[in-house]
Amino acid sequence: MTARRITATYRIETAYPIREAVETMAGEQSTGTFVRLPGETDEMRELYGAHIESVTELGEVAEASLPGAGVPKGLPGKPVWRRAEVVLSWPLANFGASLPNLVATVAGNLFELRPFSGLRLLDISLPEEFAAKYPGPKFGAEGTRRLSGVEGRPLIGTIVKPSVGLGPEQTAELVRVLCEAGIDFIKDDELQADGPHCPFEARARAVMRVIGDHAERTGKKAMYAFNITGDLDEMRRNHDLVVELGGTCVMASLNSVGLTGMIELGRFSQLPIHAHRNGWGYLSREPSLGWSYVAWQKIWRLAGADHMHVNGLRNKFCESDESVIASAKACLTPMFDSKPCTAMPVFSSGQTVRQAPATYAALGSTDLIHAAGGGIMAHPDGPAAGFAALRESWEAALAGVPLEDYARDHPALAKALGAYAA
Amino acid sequence: MTARRITATYRIETAYPIREAVETMAGEQSTGTFVRLPGETDEMRELYGAHIESVTELGEVAEASLPGAGVPKGLPGKPVWRRAEVVLSWPLANFGASLPNLVATVAGNLFELRPFSGLRLLDISLPEEFAAKYPGPKFGAEGTRRLSGVEGRPLIGTIVKPSVGLGPEQTAELVRVLCEAGIDFIKDDELQADGPHCPFEARARAVMRVIGDHAERTGKKAMYAFNITGDLDEMRRNHDLVVELGGTCVMASLNSVGLTGMIELGRFSQLPIHAHRNGWGYLSREPSLGWSYVAWQKIWRLAGADHMHVNGLRNKFCESDESVIASAKACLTPMFDSKPCTAMPVFSSGQTVRQAPATYAALGSTDLIHAAGGGIMAHPDGPAAGFAALRESWEAALAGVPLEDYARDHPALAKALGAYAA
Repeated sequence: MTARRITATYRIETAYPIREAVETMAGEQSTGTFVRLPGETDEMRELYGAHIESVTELGEVAEASLPGAGVPKGLPGKPVWRRAEVVLSWPLANFGASLPNLVATVAGNLFELRPFSGLRLLDISLPEEFAAKYPGPKFGAEGTRRLSGVEGRPLIGTIVKPSVGLGPEQTAELVRVLCEAGIDFIKDDELQADGPHCPFEARARAVMRVIGDHAERTGKKAMYAFNITGDLDEMRRNHDLVVELGGTCVMASLNSVGLTGMIELGRFSQLPIHAHRNGWGYLSREPSLGWSYVAWQKIWRLAGADHMHVNGLRNKFCESDESVIASAKACLTPMFDSKPCTAMPVFSSGQTVRQAPATYAALGSTDLIHAAGGGIMAHPDGPAAGFAALRESWEAALAGVPLEDYARDHPALAKALGAYAA
Repeated sequence: MTARRITATYRIETAYPIREAVETMAGEQSTGTFVRLPGETDEMRELYGAHIESVTELGEVAEASLPGAGVPKGLPGKPVWRRAEVVLSWPLANFGASLPNLVATVAGNLFELRPFSGLRLLDISLPEEFAAKYPGPKFGAEGTRRLSGVEGRPLIGTIVKPSVGLGPEQTAELVRVLCEAGIDFIKDDELQADGPHCPFEARARAVMRVIGDHAERTGKKAMYAFNITGDLDEMRRNHDLVVELGGTCVMASLNSVGLTGMIELGRFSQLPIHAHRNGWGYLSREPSLGWSYVAWQKIWRLAGADHMHVNGLRNKFCESDESVIASAKACLTPMFDSKPCTAMPVFSSGQTVRQAPATYAALGSTDLIHAAGGGIMAHPDGPAAGFAALRESWEAALAGVPLEDYARDHPALAKALGAYAA
């Protein structure tokens, strides 16, 4: 039976006896009642109720992490807030292999339950029926390498900046500079989709003209992730245009498109899907609330995301390196025996040659996209040297040679080490 | 120009000089860079950059609300955390009247910016172009009243419980009891959609047979919100089945379906859309992070939600009555001159006759759905008396008569007051 159950792991915090609080969670997310109703039998509870698989106490905390939690009535003294890691499970019979209904169950009306001063979804585990139902990444690392012609190292890329304000021709002009620099990968900013100032069609045509011309001359075709985020009809139309123009990647903002839209895109897309996680902060930044990336990314990979943003080491946001690496490892960990659904993690934010060795050491894989803005564009000798330096930093990392040593006979890397502070 | 700008209001918390922190926000969500790039002109910043419309300081707090925030370098002593309310604006030219791209802009890569120990989106305001592009609620209160035949008071409803475990015929049997009680509105639980144990088609056919028979006999047709949450093709198919069977409402879980899926549903639906907010806790429970309901509900109303869940007074979750009423008022506040897009707020969670007077006093409207579980089913004289009592509690509220007075010649209400504690 275990294989046909969905499990979810949570970290909770409560002033109630932990078992009692967990029973409230399990009840709310299955039979849905605190009191037994007419027609609710023991057999029904056993068959369709959520089961408590394990409860591991994690100790006390000094005060409640979130406001609004209730405390048990009639207990003497101050409430004591305790944490625990809890695993619940549900039978597939309740909602079938449905990602949207999975979300309503494992991440539904839980987070505001009164007994809890903290509740965070840490992980989920799904039976094979989900792999049969959903496409998963159609391209992943293998398909992305085939389309971009990059083997044996990460794809090295950049983001069109300024994020907004460039028109189609100005964007194409920047792309020309980047193609001439030899770059592997370029993406639209998530703020640039199909606005009046830089309409999608005009931008796609101008950019693909440049990329196509460069590929014809040199054999090197940069992968450009066109941001098709929009209403579903717009996404279809813009996807089809990118295919028609010979483009090799589309991008979508996960929290803007949402789950059923991404499932649709996963089904109809003929190109790798570059999945942007903007808004991730509101889902995750309070450690006692929301989603861990480990749980969250599984849903989008199953829906079809080929590339998943994970932030980068020493980034400009407030995420720790440890968290970034855990996210990236999660993307590369197979989900099912029959269908690994692995996605390429995308490292970005404040990235330079300095981060390559630590990224490789932590991940042990080159199946990733390493995106740098200033880390390429602001190289003292220009973008071509910026791209070369980043590529050399990965050569050094892969060879296990310190950057400073490798830089001795690699002048682009040497200049980058001078320009970008450790 | 103001009419063609999007504005968003935030409450922020930072240890940096507030103006400097707000400039970081504005930069990140428009030109996207901290440093000026080649090709980035003053004119470009003025035309396409986010503008800071206002900054209102709210005072200091004792400590940082969220972990991970940076502090200014070189300042002596402990950091001082200050709050402010901030209004930013963007030109429509950047992303057009696109709800998904609106979300990527006003609620994108902001919440994890390092200068902030708190960042919450409080409200948004959109130009009329959004009203022209998106359907908004097709039914709202007026269409819901027409289809349900309920005038002059709230629709009084309930939720099928246990949430899971009942098969199609058992669900229909419960619906029979509720129809005989005279109920206006019934909804599937959000945990019940189209699972193997209670397949949607069998449930819809069994339930609509009961509702249709009852309507034929009595002229009273209960509105049943069928939970069609699922992949988009499933939602279409199940919507069409409900239409074919003569059903009058479909339900969808907003955080499961997501924005582009809800926009699609808003376009194709021939029935009122009952929008469930399960998962709302992870978006909102930490007061220094995430979304206020006032901002959030506007997006879904524009996408087409006719009924929006707002929790209920004295609910079993940890939301305050003040917050519940603010949410409900927001749903009833027109969004555009040309298109009010008002949705019916749905009050639920621990509701009995006790909450009607305060709900009406605070809201000043009967354009709402009042859903009770035990508040109807557990009435000492059964569900018919439970429904009658709740209806009578609204009669009393509308007449401005205290419940105890009204109960003197309304025995169902009198028994309810005895059964449900104040």
